[in-house]
Formats: sequence, structure tokens, C-alpha cells
Amino acid sequence: MTSNIQLNDTNVGTGNALADRITSVRGLTEGLATGLSDADATVQSMDDASPAKWHLAHTTWFFETMILKENLEGYVVFDVRFPYLFNSYYEALGARHPRPLRGLLTRPSLDTVLAYRAHVDDGLQALMANPVSPDVEELLVLGIHHEQQHQELLLTDILHLFAQNPLRPAYRPGMPLDVDTRGAPGLHWTEFDGGRQTVGYRGDGFAFDCEGPSHDRLVEPFRLASRCVTNAEWIEFIAAGGYQSAMLWLSDGWATVNLEGWTAPFYWENRDGQWWSMTLRGAQPVDPNAPVAHISYFEADAFATFARRRLPTEFEWELASHTVPLDGKFNMLASDRLRPATARGDGLAQMFGDVWEWTRSAFSAYPGYKPDPGAVGEYNGKFMNGQYVLKGGSCVTPPDHIRRSYRNFFQPDKRWQFSGVRLAEDL
Amino acid sequence: MTSNIQLNDTNVGTGNALADRITSVRGLTEGLATGLSDADATVQSMDDASPAKWHLAHTTWFFETMILKENLEGYVVFDVRFPYLFNSYYEALGARHPRPLRGLLTRPSLDTVLAYRAHVDDGLQALMANPVSPDVEELLVLGIHHEQQHQELLLTDILHLFAQNPLRPAYRPGMPLDVDTRGAPGLHWTEFDGGRQTVGYRGDGFAFDCEGPSHDRLVEPFRLASRCVTNAEWIEFIAAGGYQSAMLWLSDGWATVNLEGWTAPFYWENRDGQWWSMTLRGAQPVDPNAPVAHISYFEADAFATFARRRLPTEFEWELASHTVPLDGKFNMLASDRLRPATARGDGLAQMFGDVWEWTRSAFSAYPGYKPDPGAVGEYNGKFMNGQYVLKGGSCVTPPDHIRRSYRNFFQPDKRWQFSGVRLAEDL
Amino acid sequence: MTSNIQLNDTNVGTGNALADRITSVRGLTEGLATGLSDADATVQSMDDASPAKWHLAHTTWFFETMILKENLEGYVVFDVRFPYLFNSYYEALGARHPRPLRGLLTRPSLDTVLAYRAHVDDGLQALMANPVSPDVEELLVLGIHHEQQHQELLLTDILHLFAQNPLRPAYRPGMPLDVDTRGAPGLHWTEFDGGRQTVGYRGDGFAFDCEGPSHDRLVEPFRLASRCVTNAEWIEFIAAGGYQSAMLWLSDGWATVNLEGWTAPFYWENRDGQWWSMTLRGAQPVDPNAPVAHISYFEADAFATFARRRLPTEFEWELASHTVPLDGKFNMLASDRLRPATARGDGLAQMFGDVWEWTRSAFSAYPGYKPDPGAVGEYNGKFMNGQYVLKGGSCVTPPDHIRRSYRNFFQPDKRWQFSGVRLAEDL
Amino acid sequence: MTSNIQLNDTNVGTGNALADRITSVRGLTEGLATGLSDADATVQSMDDASPAKWHLAHTTWFFETMILKENLEGYVVFDVRFPYLFNSYYEALGARHPRPLRGLLTRPSLDTVLAYRAHVDDGLQALMANPVSPDVEELLVLGIHHEQQHQELLLTDILHLFAQNPLRPAYRPGMPLDVDTRGAPGLHWTEFDGGRQTVGYRGDGFAFDCEGPSHDRLVEPFRLASRCVTNAEWIEFIAAGGYQSAMLWLSDGWATVNLEGWTAPFYWENRDGQWWSMTLRGAQPVDPNAPVAHISYFEADAFATFARRRLPTEFEWELASHTVPLDGKFNMLASDRLRPATARGDGLAQMFGDVWEWTRSAFSAYPGYKPDPGAVGEYNGKFMNGQYVLKGGSCVTPPDHIRRSYRNFFQPDKRWQFSGVRLAEDL
Repeated sequence: MTSNIQLNDTNVGTGNALADRITSVRGLTEGLATGLSDADATVQSMDDASPAKWHLAHTTWFFETMILKENLEGYVVFDVRFPYLFNSYYEALGARHPRPLRGLLTRPSLDTVLAYRAHVDDGLQALMANPVSPDVEELLVLGIHHEQQHQELLLTDILHLFAQNPLRPAYRPGMPLDVDTRGAPGLHWTEFDGGRQTVGYRGDGFAFDCEGPSHDRLVEPFRLASRCVTNAEWIEFIAAGGYQSAMLWLSDGWATVNLEGWTAPFYWENRDGQWWSMTLRGAQPVDPNAPVAHISYFEADAFATFARRRLPTEFEWELASHTVPLDGKFNMLASDRLRPATARGDGLAQMFGDVWEWTRSAFSAYPGYKPDPGAVGEYNGKFMNGQYVLKGGSCVTPPDHIRRSYRNFFQPDKRWQFSGVRLAEDL
Repeated sequence: MTSNIQLNDTNVGTGNALADRITSVRGLTEGLATGLSDADATVQSMDDASPAKWHLAHTTWFFETMILKENLEGYVVFDVRFPYLFNSYYEALGARHPRPLRGLLTRPSLDTVLAYRAHVDDGLQALMANPVSPDVEELLVLGIHHEQQHQELLLTDILHLFAQNPLRPAYRPGMPLDVDTRGAPGLHWTEFDGGRQTVGYRGDGFAFDCEGPSHDRLVEPFRLASRCVTNAEWIEFIAAGGYQSAMLWLSDGWATVNLEGWTAPFYWENRDGQWWSMTLRGAQPVDPNAPVAHISYFEADAFATFARRRLPTEFEWELASHTVPLDGKFNMLASDRLRPATARGDGLAQMFGDVWEWTRSAFSAYPGYKPDPGAVGEYNGKFMNGQYVLKGGSCVTPPDHIRRSYRNFFQPDKRWQFSGVRLAEDL
Repeated sequence: MTSNIQLNDTNVGTGNALADRITSVRGLTEGLATGLSDADATVQSMDDASPAKWHLAHTTWFFETMILKENLEGYVVFDVRFPYLFNSYYEALGARHPRPLRGLLTRPSLDTVLAYRAHVDDGLQALMANPVSPDVEELLVLGIHHEQQHQELLLTDILHLFAQNPLRPAYRPGMPLDVDTRGAPGLHWTEFDGGRQTVGYRGDGFAFDCEGPSHDRLVEPFRLASRCVTNAEWIEFIAAGGYQSAMLWLSDGWATVNLEGWTAPFYWENRDGQWWSMTLRGAQPVDPNAPVAHISYFEADAFATFARRRLPTEFEWELASHTVPLDGKFNMLASDRLRPATARGDGLAQMFGDVWEWTRSAFSAYPGYKPDPGAVGEYNGKFMNGQYVLKGGSCVTPPDHIRRSYRNFFQPDKRWQFSGVRLAEDL
Repeated sequence: MTSNIQLNDTNVGTGNALADRITSVRGLTEGLATGLSDADATVQSMDDASPAKWHLAHTTWFFETMILKENLEGYVVFDVRFPYLFNSYYEALGARHPRPLRGLLTRPSLDTVLAYRAHVDDGLQALMANPVSPDVEELLVLGIHHEQQHQELLLTDILHLFAQNPLRPAYRPGMPLDVDTRGAPGLHWTEFDGGRQTVGYRGDGFAFDCEGPSHDRLVEPFRLASRCVTNAEWIEFIAAGGYQSAMLWLSDGWATVNLEGWTAPFYWENRDGQWWSMTLRGAQPVDPNAPVAHISYFEADAFATFARRRLPTEFEWELASHTVPLDGKFNMLASDRLRPATARGDGLAQMFGDVWEWTRSAFSAYPGYKPDPGAVGEYNGKFMNGQYVLKGGSCVTPPDHIRRSYRNFFQPDKRWQFSGVRLAEDL
């Protein structure tokens, strides 16, 4: 995180405000797990995903290990065996249970993990009953943002799990959503002059270390699409033989298409000529006007080549984002969310909170970047290889977790996130 | 199964007796699942194992599909999607969920599966309220024995699951068992003349098709060990470098030792110089006098080479078994079972119900063998490749499921069953 | 090998006769390599195959290591680095180059390997210039038979290599062979009474250790087909959907069919509706009357199920073989050989020297079998797992290497040998 | 390549000069293959490498397919089956032999491939006997540079092949080289102001398309090491536990270290405490003063972290390179080359022709980059994923193939190239 973190930003606060914020975020996580059975919360459906129970426990371990053990006098670790089970990848914090085996932990049960959460929550409130040092405050804020990241992963991982089940269970049942029959708005191209531009986080709130240092970039003039590529447009790409045309694809992408047998976005299946998609509401007909989601970088890039356009850089995207207000405040537990929405209105639409938008920028260090010292330094820097930056947040990103400078990152073959594509071109 | 099945054997009966027997066996299965959480019953810990929930549902599917659908008028299938989920390997019965993905089915829940069982149990009782045809009776008896096989698998698969958990949970907690300090009895060798011997099932009760036809074999004179190899003897084998001596092993066995890094029986771990083993009671010190269990054919064969002996053939074992009464009647739910016992007394000991004993006989067809027609014909014959016969039943085999002619079979690298070894030699 | 070996059999001889025999066999090996380029002789086309150069060197290493080093005074090892390179699998003889990497040895060159052969040949002749002990004589005879085994492998491995080349080069060019237009003779069934029969090698010549001890078996009455299954019959099996019918296959066989995508025998390809096969003469149209070759055990077994017959046991085959004279004397270097021949005449045909015939007998120890002590004891016994016995020899087996008691063995998925099938049934 | 290519640069020429240049470059390729046996030239030692014979044929196919077929009247394709065999990855040019199977092509022989080369060389000279269009000239120049790339690969692939051979054959035998006992010069740090800098190819000679468009970048002030990291410094890294310290490594790098068991640079082996390395002269003691070579990006990055420095960006490197003259003219066939040299003198040393230097820049498109239309457009753009840029050329790069703007690229785990590391740091 940035070293000059100021806690008076709108997202977090000092003293009671911070305590309230922690209560609120921690409570949301549990809210997201409501309705999951012990089994739902235990199974790991692929190596990339983690069980919901693990997310619940790991975020708790983070607070316990990074903060309470050192800073709360008299704190008693809930279970001395848990750090081994719930450390994710922090080499500095000792051995850990192998990631692909997380789904074998039928014990501790979901109930026990919830008790673990309550125990640590009590500890956090006890800690915050008295003033804490700036260092501790900084770690608490980091813990909040860390937990928000896992809220999104909990949802994407549950979707993946349920998608493997021939019964296609719904995370949030309810009625199928009406398809918006008004159609998607026409696609506009917004021009940007570029030039010398300052990028990266430069506010006084929280940001992850990899969002800085803020620095200047030269950006060539470019155009950016007013909205994301829609499902209807993607269906045209499929119909035009996009998944069979080697010339459209990066070499590694084409190899992946053939190895994995891709013929459509992840979670799509064709039922008698109609495309359906697995969603958090179960299998649903694909909405032609909604942004395409669950596509890989390879697919996004191939589509752009097909459309004779290209993907934006992360800097172009960040520059353009300043023309759009960032005020999305919605309730993640409301069941009318959890899906990308059809674009409406003028200007750049769908910049925040619909789908993560692949950029052509490899996830790498900004000039002058140095990971923080200590265990939290393993947060971002060691992943700066083989991944691309995604921008904007998705419909399952906690809305107050979204920033213009936020750099999400995934490998180019990953599809289980709510990832989509917005086109760009040179002026 | 044998075509001349007679239902007046001690294990099953006609009319009410058969209905009672089904109730009893079905009830035991549920009893074995008591104490498992929804998560415990859902997770699949390796491709060879199945979730407990799957065992509960599959055995139920067997009765529903093989019997009720065709023979109970008005029977309504519990859920039309279940046959796809719970067919195991019957090609004649249509497509099925891939075996390695059984553990992803967090739905239906354990409760729903138990409701499925009740629904089918009701159907079975309704069916048996009136006289049934011999064919149906035969299938009902087969269903009982099929379910008993899965009772054992349920236990071995749960043991495997719990063994993957660093918390080493106990299926049946309770106190650690006292080690029998009297020591194992000395090893005797019993001589058998051999000659022309009739083998295979020839009674009038139930037997699987592969146990027949009964036929004659020439058996050379041989000696058989009075008891199984003990853990203490296995520890000597380890100490003598058995797992590092290529010359003791079959070529495929040596490759497996190196690929898998075997240095001891499955589930064993060395804690500060003391061997412990994962058991259904959790991690326990290895009992030196108990038979070694959880060894592969490769290990059994290497040990025999090390001891300058050999494994018995299945025919030698069956011949010798006639000198021992088969009267083991124990309660599988009693927690003092579920482990191999120290040998006591004279004569051949531990022939039934301690550990499955590897033989050197490949699992193959007896002369004149023909699989039954129809779906049940896929029961044994199609597995007659790459497996060895094991005899005698283990401590987790339902005691009334054990027969002298019973031919259990597993691939030579499998270790998660309660499999052990008894030595033989030429006279 | 048998302990009571007598060297006055027709295949080998004492004194000068033995020296001549060695010269002849060693010369044939080199003759088989004639026409191969350095590159042809170096490349390894799959893990199961070895380069021709390796066969040339390994058989030479066998004589050098097992005999000359210990028994020829003053013998100088040709290159001290070669034992590491050319030991195959003898654990007792130290570390060796990993099998899958044999094809990376572009050095030593083919010329150097031929010089190695000449050096060892000189040593062998020097050794035999004086009387040798019975033990040495026995090893020399074993070396001859070992080399003959590798002669066959050299040919099957070269065929595999050339089959991977889109240019389909011919090992022995020349014109395509005329197809025998007379058609295959009708299939007869010969009946055998069975009963107590003596099997295994019981002569006074050479036999491998696994061919004994000679012992009695009970054989049930059976019928054996008068000839092997033909290509025409196999084409019917294909046309009837044999490769798509799960119910015909062993479970492991069906898995292999799907994993490997088998739709026809190995080396077959369909060119505009006509089946062609890669042969030692290059790609050739499939001869409908010739025995099918290059099929796996799984395919042989599925075909037998399709034909409502079964495979014979090795004992049935051996018993039947006594009704056929074994006098095949042909020149392996004559280019009109190297292919299975159409059956002609009465009685059992094609028993020797056409295709190896899969039996349903797992390769296992005969009663009383004990491997020889020392390094040569690793010859057969350690492979007694997961393999089936094949009988009769193929068109690329050196004719004087064929015996009724000979037990060839391969895993059930192997197809690169000249392996075929003869049907049997119960009487 | 750049669209405004001018052929009057120093590397190539028009008319006779171009013809001479082609003769010279083509002749060098054959010179590099001198001393290789047919087998050496045929075997493929890993999927990443190609056989020397394949390099000889593929570069020839490039001229034949891209130029002669369309532009030389009456040209007869040498063998119509070769395009399938020797197309590398051009999707636009049809199906091709799978890359991992290149080493199975024992035919055509090396002699036939050399005849193929002569045939195409004749065609090229015939073509150039008359004036050619600018488009054809451009393709001829591209063919030259393409062939030069394969000259380097031929050497690195032969080194890899010979390194797999326990005999450790030398590509260029001769005496082991004296170690330079004067020691490596001290390490200096050269400062650069950075600022707005023009990067990418902007001359009027040849450059690959990915070297442009030339454009401006903002470069922060930085320091660059005066020489590459030496073997002596790498030995210190090993001794300090560098390969065992997770905290030094990128996450993917640490996974690779453990999966592959890396403990030293590729080709290094420790003989009784002394480090040796496989080289084109066979196994040689590691020269402490020479630049370390055969390291991956992961290792380069871990070393930089260990040294509390970082890798340079490709733009920093290019900027710094303008302070060093590029005049390396050496004879690649001289056996005193083919190894990185000890640094001497003041200023930045070893910038050109010693080892390829890993940069931290992902290989990606420059602003405004568009691949050329047609088959040659598959040259670079489709590989812009998962690779890093390397700069400067190595001791086996043809000296007139080196440019300041040249962007070599490899995946971060590759080690078989002559790849090394130069450190940078922020000012």
C-alpha cells in the first residue's frame, strides 16, 4: 500500500469509524456466505478457486496473524493449527497447506469457521477500543481491502463450483431476469488527445502498493469505445468463425483454444440454437444487450483483431476514466445486482462495476516501485509476471472497492472472473 | 451372480425375511454415515474414492434403476436427473457424470440424498409386499450385496479423506486403543498337500458371477503362514532398506516406489522415531502386533521376496480357508472394530475379517465364465485386466458379506483398502 | 534360463559350432541394420522403442559385461562410458542412461557402435578358441537368444520410427506386393479334449527361465480357430462399429480407445475409403486375406467378444501347437518375408512365424518358478505384472528363436509388435 | 519489417551486393553445420529446440515459399512434400508437421537437405540475375535476417543436444580455453538522466516490424551497471542460498525452481566442488570472470532482488546503448568465439555480442504497431504474450545481425539461449 496513507478518505475512517467499517465489511462477507451449505462452502472446484469457507477463514487469519497476534495484549490464537491451513501464499509466514488441496478440508466445519470469525472480530473490536498506532491502523485498512478482494472471489468461485454441477444450482434463486428489450445503445467512439499524463494513485486514501508511485506517461492520441462489447456482438464473432480462425489469435491463445476446446465464452452452452449462460441465478438465456463476460485476454484480443481494433492500455483507460464520475453505491446483497447491466445514456458507459476490462498492459512495476517490507510485501510484486491488468471493477466487486487507479490482474487464459472487453484504436 | 441362486441361505431369505434383510442392510449404510457432516459426505479426496453421499445415492439408484422402475407399478422416479449423477460405470444404462467430478456435487445435499433413500426404501417395501418373481428376487439379493460392497468403500474412502486433513479427524473418536502388550504369536507354517481341488462358489446361496463356475484346479503342495505379516515385521523390512532395494521389487513396483516416494505403508508417518498411522479413530501409534494394512500388491510382493517366500495363489488360499470356520458375526458400528486384530490361538488365524490378503493371482475369468446378460453383466467381467485377487475380507467388510470363494480385486498400486499380506512357500 | 540346459540341441552347439552360431547371429543383426542411415539408427520414436544403434550396442554390452569382462583374460573394455549408456534395466549392474533419453545419443555414431561390435566379436572368438566352462557356455547361449530378441525389436522399432514420418520411408523398398487374390481359406474349428496336460519347456535345449518349470495343468475341452483373424474380418468389425461400442470392451480397453482415439489397428490409415497400412515396405494397401497385425490385447479381446468367442489361454495354445510341425526356416533378410502370410492348407495354420497371438493368460510365474541368481535373474521375473502372454512368433521373429513353450509378453495396450489374434471357444 | 526499408544500409545491398550477401549468409549457415553428423543434425532434444537439419531446411523453405514460388518463372519446387515438413508456424501457409515431432524425420537425410539448399540457392541467384521489384527485394532482405536468426538457434540447439549426452561431445573441439586470470574489472555504475527519449528503430536499413514505430518514451533517471553479472558473482548467489530463498523470487519463478529442481545456471554441474559448464567446446570449468549465461528471467530477477537492484527496462537499455559503438565484426566460425568474453576497458562493456540481457519489459506492441499483412505478418505480433525482451545479442548472434533496437524475446523460464543479466537501479 502507499506509504503516505491517510485514513480520512471516504472509504475508511479513524477510531469508531474504522471499527464500524470493519464490522460492516466483515458482516458483508458473512452475508455473502448466507445460503451456502457446509458442503457448498467446502468444495474447491478448480485449483484457481478456493472454497467459500477458506475465504471466510483466510481473511480472518489475515487479521489475526498480521495484527492481533502482535498488537493485542492477551490475544489467544483461536486454533494454533489454523495458520497452516489458512495462509495463502506468504512465504515469510511459514509453511502452508497446498493450494490445490484446500477443498479436502471438510473440517473445520463452516460453523467452526464462523466461530473463528467471531473470535477474531471480538479481538479487533477490543483492539480498536483504544487508540492504535498509525502502523496498526494501516494494517487494519489493508485488512479491509484484502477482505473485499476475497468477497469478489468468493462469488466468482461459487459461480464456478455451481457451474460444474449438472443441476445448475442458483446462488441467488429468484425469477429469471427479464431481458432488456430496448436493445443496447449504438457504439460511439470518444477521442482523447493523450500527451504527458499522470497515472497511478495520487490521493490520500488507500491504494495497493502496485498502484504507485504516481508518475507521468506519454499517451498517444486514441479513441475509446463508449461501452463494452455486448453478448450480441460476441455471438456475431462466434457465427463468423472467430473461434476457428487461427489468424485472429495470439499464438498462445490459439494453442489454448485448441487445447481447451473453446467455442464460446466460459459458462455458455448452446441449447437448441439458443445461447444460455450459467449465472449466480442459475442457467439463464444470454442477454444480447449486456456486456459479454467470462472471456479471457486471449479472446478479448482475438475479438479486437476481428473488429480491426485493439485493446486499450491501462493508461489510456485510466486517463479516460477521469471523464466519468465514480459514485456507484449499490448493495451487493441485492439480488438484482450480480450481473453486468445494459449500457444507457451518453458518454463513456459501463466504466465501473459491470465487467473487469482487459487491457493490453502486462502487470508490471511502475517506475520507482518497491514492495513494502515484511509479509505484506508479498501482496502484489511477486505476481508481476505473465498477467495482464484489468480495470474498472465488475458487478461483483464491492462498489467502494473500485478506484480509477486499481490494477486487477489475471493470466491471459483465465475466464472465471467477470471479465469483458472495451475496444480502442489509434487516432 | 450365479444363475442357480437359492434364497434360503443364511444371509438372505424369501418374502418377509428378504424385506427385513434389505431394511437391515440399508439401515446399516445410513448408520455408517452417521456423524459425517454434509461436507464430509460430499468431498472426493481422490479419483479412486467416492464421496459418502455418492455411495448413499448410488446404491439407491441401483435399486431404483435395476428393479423399481421396471417392476413396481406406479413407481415415480425420485428425481429424473439423478440417474445421470449416480450411475457408476454401466455403459448399458446411459451417460453418466464423470467419476473424477463426483466431489463437485454439493447439491443434492446429504439431506436430499437421505430423502432419496427413504423414497426408494418405501418403493422396495411396497414391491415386496407382494410376491416377486425369481428374477426380481435375484436382483434384490444382488442389490443387497452391492450395497454391502459400498459400505466397505464408504469407510475406506472416508478414511482416505480424513487422512488428507492435517487435523487428522477421527471417524469414530473415542480413546486411543491400548496396544496389545502380549505380543503376536509366533509364526507357524501349515502344510497342504494340494492335488486336484475344486474351487469357486458351489453352494446354493449368493455369489458374484466371477466366483464361478466352480471347477477343478491342480494345486502343488505348499505351506501357508499361520497369520498375516505384522506391523513389527514390516518395520524390520523398512529398517533393512526394503524401500530402497531395487532387487526386491517388480519392475513396475520399483517405478511406483520412486514415482510416489513410498517409504512406508500408506497412512504411516514417522513422528520423532515412532511410527503412527491414520485410522478411523484418527492418528494412532502403530500397533506392532496387528497385521500390517494399507499396503499395495507391489509392497506385498517385495516383502515376500525379502522374506524369501512368495504370495499364495487365490486357489491355495481358498483351499486352506476350508480348515477355518467362517462365523464372524460382529457389529460394524461398534467402535472396537474397524481395525485389524492381533492373532490369537492355534491354526490358521486372521483368515477372515482382518485384512484383505493379496494373492499372486491375476483377476481373470474362470473356465466357462460368462458375464450375465444385461446391465448387471458389467459388474465384474469388464474389470478382468490389470488387477489381482484379494481374499478373506477386512475389518471393515460387513461380516456376512465374506465368503471363501469371494474374489476382491484391485490394481497392484492401490493402498487405501485394508489390504495386507500372508506368506506362502513351495513344499 | 533352465538350469539343466543342454547345448546339443539343434539351435546351438558346442565348441566351433557355438562360435559359428554366434558369428551367424551377430552377423544377422548387422545385416538387419544395413540400409539404415546414422540418423535412422539414432532416433527413438517413443519410450517403448529403442534406436537401432542402441540395440546394436546393448546386445554387445551384454556379451561384454556378462561374459568377456569376467572370463576373457586381458580383455579391455571398449569404452568405459558405454556400460552406463547401454545397460537396459539391470539394477544389479549399476546406474544407466534413462530409457526415454536413448534417442539423444547422437554420439557414439553408428560407425563407432559397429567398431564396438567388432571389438566384442573378436573377444568372443578369442574366448571360444579355448574350451569354456559350462557356466560360460550357458551365458553365451543366453547371449545368442537375447540378441535374437533384439533383432525382432530392431525391426518393430524401425517400423514405428518410419511410420511417424509423413514421407513413409520403406525399410525394404521394392515394389508393392501383389495381394493374394485367392482369398483366405474358410475358418475351421479344431476340437481339443483337454484334461491333465504337461506344459512349459521340458526339452534339453535352451529356454528362458519363465518357460519352466514344466508342470501339469487341467485344461477344459475347447475349440481353436484354424487360422488367425484376417484383415477382411477386422474391416467388418470396424464397419460394425466395433470401436464405438463400449459394451464390447474391457473397462481399461474402452478408456484407452477413447484416450488414444483408436479407430483401426495401429499403422492403418484410410485413404479415400481404402485401408492402407504402414509396413516395412512403406505404406501398402491392406491385404484382406492376411492376418490382422498391430492390434492390442484390448482390441483382440473386444473382437472376440464381438465374435461371441474368446481368446485362448496360453496352455490351450501350447497344447494345440503340438499338432503342428515347427520347421520354419526362412531367411529374415529376404525381402519377401517381413509380413504375415495368408493361410493355406488344412489343419491349424499360421501357428508359427506370422503374428504373435494374444492369449488371455496374464504373464505370471509357473508353480515352483524361481528367477536365476545374479544379474540374469532380472530377465523375466520382474516383469510379471500387468502383461499378457503371446504365443507363436511373428514374421519378424528369427525363425530358430520360436518355440512352443515360448512366452512373449506385452502390456495390453501395446500395438507396435506384429501382434494378432486367434479365437477360441469352450466346447 | 519496417515499410520504408532502404537497402543501402551497411548490412545489405542492391543488385549484386544483395546476391553476394545472400551467398555469404547462406554459406555461413552451412559452415555452422560442418562437423555435424547426419544423426547430430536430425535429433530434437526438447520441444523448444529444432534439429540442425530442420533449421537448414526451414530457412530454405522460407525463400522458396515466400519468394521463388511466386516470383521466379519456371521455378520447380524441390519436393512438394517439404512445405508440410518445414513450415514452422505460419497458419496462413497451411498445415505443418507438429513441432515436437521434428526430430523423428530421419528422412530426408542431411545430404538431401543440402541438395535442397543448393536447389533454392540456384533459384535465388537466377532470380537476382535480373532486377527485382522493391517488394521482392524486401522479402529477400527479410529472408537474410530470418536465416541469421536460425544461425543462432542452430548453435543453441546443438549445445542443448550435446548437453544431454553423458559423453559431453564438443561442437568445436580443440583445447580447453585458458581462464582469464586477470579478474573481472570492478563494477561501475553509469548514470543516465532519462527524460523524453525516442526509442525504436528509426534508420533506413532493415528492422523487424516489432522494433517500430519509433516513438517517444519518458524515462526516469537511472543507473546501469558497467558490465554483466559474472560467474563469480553468481557463485556467491548460489553460496548465499539464492536458490533456496523463496522471498527473492517471483511467485512463478519460485514454483519453477521447485518444479525443475534448479540449483545453478543451466548446463552447470558441480564436480567435486568445482563448477563446470557444458559449452560448445564440451564441458569446461566455469570461468569466474566471464558473464553468467544460460539463466532464465526468473533467475535474473531473483539475482537482482538479492543484489538490491533491479533489471533495466528495454528503453533504459536502448538509451544507454547509444553511448557505445556498435562495431563488432567477428567471424562466427572462428573457434575462439562462441563464448562470452571478460569485460575490459572503461565505460559500458559487454553491451553487444556477449550475452542477451534480460530486461523487465514484457514483449508488447509499440504504440501504433501493426503487423505486416500476409504471411510475414505472423513473424512477431502473434508472440506478444508471456515473453520478455532481451537486448544486445550474444556471442553466437551473427555480429551484423545486432542492432540497438533489436528486441529478442523469450519466456521467463527459458535458459538454453546465451542469456545473462546486467543490473540497473533508480537514481
